[in-house]
Amino acid sequence: MLHKAAVIGGGVIGAGWIARLLQNGVNVAVFDPAADAQQKIDAVVANAALAANKLSDTRSRTPGRLRYCDTLEQAVMDVELIVEAVPEQLELKQSVYSQVEAAAGEDALIASSTSGILPTRLQEKMAHPERLLVAHPFNPVYLLPLVELVGGEQTSMQTIERAKEIYKYLGMHPLHVRKEIEAFIADRLLEAVWREALWLVKDGVATTEEIDDAIRYGFGLRWAQMGMFETYRIAGGEKGMRHFIAQFGPCLQWPWTRLTDVPELDEELTEKIASQSDAQSGQYSIGELERIRDDNLVGILRVLEKNNWGAGKTLKYYEARLNAEIEES
Amino acid sequence: MLHKAAVIGGGVIGAGWIARLLQNGVNVAVFDPAADAQQKIDAVVANAALAANKLSDTRSRTPGRLRYCDTLEQAVMDVELIVEAVPEQLELKQSVYSQVEAAAGEDALIASSTSGILPTRLQEKMAHPERLLVAHPFNPVYLLPLVELVGGEQTSMQTIERAKEIYKYLGMHPLHVRKEIEAFIADRLLEAVWREALWLVKDGVATTEEIDDAIRYGFGLRWAQMGMFETYRIAGGEKGMRHFIAQFGPCLQWPWTRLTDVPELDEELTEKIASQSDAQSGQYSIGELERIRDDNLVGILRVLEKNNWGAGKTLKYYEARLNAEIEES
Repeated sequence: MLHKAAVIGGGVIGAGWIARLLQNGVNVAVFDPAADAQQKIDAVVANAALAANKLSDTRSRTPGRLRYCDTLEQAVMDVELIVEAVPEQLELKQSVYSQVEAAAGEDALIASSTSGILPTRLQEKMAHPERLLVAHPFNPVYLLPLVELVGGEQTSMQTIERAKEIYKYLGMHPLHVRKEIEAFIADRLLEAVWREALWLVKDGVATTEEIDDAIRYGFGLRWAQMGMFETYRIAGGEKGMRHFIAQFGPCLQWPWTRLTDVPELDEELTEKIASQSDAQSGQYSIGELERIRDDNLVGILRVLEKNNWGAGKTLKYYEARLNAEIEES
Repeated sequence: MLHKAAVIGGGVIGAGWIARLLQNGVNVAVFDPAADAQQKIDAVVANAALAANKLSDTRSRTPGRLRYCDTLEQAVMDVELIVEAVPEQLELKQSVYSQVEAAAGEDALIASSTSGILPTRLQEKMAHPERLLVAHPFNPVYLLPLVELVGGEQTSMQTIERAKEIYKYLGMHPLHVRKEIEAFIADRLLEAVWREALWLVKDGVATTEEIDDAIRYGFGLRWAQMGMFETYRIAGGEKGMRHFIAQFGPCLQWPWTRLTDVPELDEELTEKIASQSDAQSGQYSIGELERIRDDNLVGILRVLEKNNWGAGKTLKYYEARLNAEIEES
């Protein structure tokens, strides 16, 4: 159970957290000093509610209340979980924690949404560093179940266990990243693809649209339900992974040496990507793309739920838990 | 339209091609000298028929006839398309083409399923090299729409255009890889992820199952419908890709220098991967995993068809074309 949470920072990720928390009956206090924060957050929360309605035709929790606060101190007072979603600057984040610690209860969990900064660095200057962890979500936070949990050197095991419970309560799949490593797990894989894709665009091999098509008409469909290793296990046939590696390992190695440089993201490459992206997706507004994406995700998640597989298992677990809760009450 | 095709080699890819061709009313002649080839191909064709029935509730083409041939010459005689799906060895493939050219009609298209060898190399010794191209599919070939078309220096534009028509007729999304490049487009992206995943396993950061979960509970769901660039366009908000790159480009660059080595696929790493994969998926036979995968893919493809998006557009186009055909006849 989780009753009250604070979210510091209402950008795309912060607003996504707010929506997921509200949908799960958690009262949320927000602090974001930007003038247009409330308007942007309200838009994300409305979008997320549309998606949530389509995702489930069973009963749901009574939505939590959203409260905008004028100060960080007001927001974090008397909550169980503090979600930090401010820009990716170590010193900024450290100063937020210092303010948080001065105002929040001692046993409140502090969860950073950082996609790359090590929790050991984040907690360096804290009075109670044992309750800080990274809980790294994926956009759209209100639909994608993955959350990577990473503890720093001073994070307690109790914090990790409590966090696992909280994120399961929120309908998510907490993946405990057992070794503290920059960029964690998913973003390391994403960065590898991003780097290679930059080369393909820079060298004029493919446009952004052709690269996206190579993903979504092919292996992207596999990865929505199985990952890479399970897919390759099938490719290896009954003889298993050992056979797959013996058969394909050497082929996969051929062009590696040419792939391991890093392209510079200079003005020319940025312009190339930006204009190709306009040509590819410019006919849709971002709002339209978001709704298309959410409808697709909802449909895919429901298919997987029906088949009791992958992200669908998380949904099934969540709905079972929800029904048990409602019957208890 | 396509009436008769030959498939040389009946492994996982060859058998997948056979299934897709048969489902589209194409008569297929197969040559594979392996003793158990027929048994394995029949199993794939039966699996594929199950999936095809679930994928469409509209009318379909009358399935083609499958004929097993004792010689390559018998198989390729009098067909419009010859699909080569033999092991990834340049000399073996070249010798197959030489046999094919001695027996097949001059205007038959020759399509290699290679996932990495350059078509310019493949066609080096051919009498009519202009009709050879690479048509690189993705497993399961009977469900995934992507096929990468790559011409070599001597491939004619007419061959590429004819191939586009053929693969659209087969319900696929032909992606013309305009620059001849090792591993083409999709496999370059896959190799980048594979390389990074090998490091994560080798360094004990994550198991194969944790890596697969990081994919399928998170960005894999995004990639089934949008690719990477369109997803990031949304993350950049209304300000577009330029904003996204300015905001996230530098973060993505942080750990790059540590990611660009290549791990050696030695015995120890192979054993680690194989045993982790057993722990992850060993409770299912490969046949069970294939059926689970196919059911998930069918469901996802139907969602995308309903939403007229990504791979679903290919399906919609295909069904429209099929209905037009049937009405004409």
